[in-house]
Amino acid sequence: MNKIITISREFGSGGRELGRRIANVLQIAYYDQEIINELAKRTSYTKEYLEQIEESKFIPLLPITVGRTFSSQFYQAMEPNQSAFLKQNTIIKEMAEKSDCVIVGRCADYFLSDKKPLRIFVYADMAAKVARCLKKGELTEHLTDDELMQKIKSIDKYRAKYYQFHTGQAWGEKSFYDLCINTTSLDIKGISATVANLIQHRG
Amino acid sequence: MNKIITISREFGSGGRELGRRIANVLQIAYYDQEIINELAKRTSYTKEYLEQIEESKFIPLLPITVGRTFSSQFYQAMEPNQSAFLKQNTIIKEMAEKSDCVIVGRCADYFLSDKKPLRIFVYADMAAKVARCLKKGELTEHLTDDELMQKIKSIDKYRAKYYQFHTGQAWGEKSFYDLCINTTSLDIKGISATVANLIQHRG
Repeated sequence: MNKIITISREFGSGGRELGRRIANVLQIAYYDQEIINELAKRTSYTKEYLEQIEESKFIPLLPITVGRTFSSQFYQAMEPNQSAFLKQNTIIKEMAEKSDCVIVGRCADYFLSDKKPLRIFVYADMAAKVARCLKKGELTEHLTDDELMQKIKSIDKYRAKYYQFHTGQAWGEKSFYDLCINTTSLDIKGISATVANLIQHRG
Repeated sequence: MNKIITISREFGSGGRELGRRIANVLQIAYYDQEIINELAKRTSYTKEYLEQIEESKFIPLLPITVGRTFSSQFYQAMEPNQSAFLKQNTIIKEMAEKSDCVIVGRCADYFLSDKKPLRIFVYADMAAKVARCLKKGELTEHLTDDELMQKIKSIDKYRAKYYQFHTGQAWGEKSFYDLCINTTSLDIKGISATVANLIQHRG
């Protein structure tokens, strides 16, 4: 069976960087944007549209709201896109069949459970996530630090809802992962080889 | 500053074994039972009594109950022992000052926060914890598997309460740890050197 590592991550925690570095260390495939590209080829949707309904990219279209308004907008967005989601799952399964790989997001930890992936959740304190976004220039245009913090919260709220909607499980609840890594005071570059090594020690 | 690793763990998850192995790999001090021994020397309490008020050892004295009964028994047990707890904290701080070390339990992650320990939480699925207890012969005498499961739940409930009482924080909530390791499908012996290596990569 191929070795599969799935990365779920809070926005700004560096999960994507960790995933890419792990794939580099192990010299295995890395799937993230590639999944959207393949999905666009197989559906009538454009990459841009798929990015909108996909996790965080959808958020900028929504006002930062709470409760019912957020929920009803969420379900309106999800409902007509179930077929695209099912196709995305097929693509993820094909990728996992092909070779060892790292897959970021897309509920891959849940939908590939029969392949026993090493399921990693990456998170960090809010101050560390804000600092990382500022350093990387992500989402920071025209936003105060406070607005940036609200945006990060909003994106993670969307991710949690997306994961719950598709899996029935609580996003970030540690019992659903093999390893939860807090990058607040761990150097992502430094730990990537170490974390990659863990895939050798499945019991 | 000394390198400190703290291990918090669910009962039966193998956290203690992981801690001991990490200390062996790094060739640093390991503190667990040693803390009780030192505390007995500095107080009028016997080791046996201190073990009773200390984390899991107290549980066999309590019936498996829920709600108010459990709480009132808990607070009755804690109240006269605050001075012993404070002395225990002094001992932990002295140990952390002396050299690099691994410390198991005793809210060390919280009370040594100024020393920036690598805070590890070890957990596992219930089935894996039951299997581990059966293999190690821990708590298994005269207990059915179902009773063993209840006992494990009860011990962890006590640990959570003990931690909450002394720190005001939620035990096992991942934001309070640098690394949460699910030992359900990871080989503890295999990962110990890898996990030990992470202490080199504090950001």
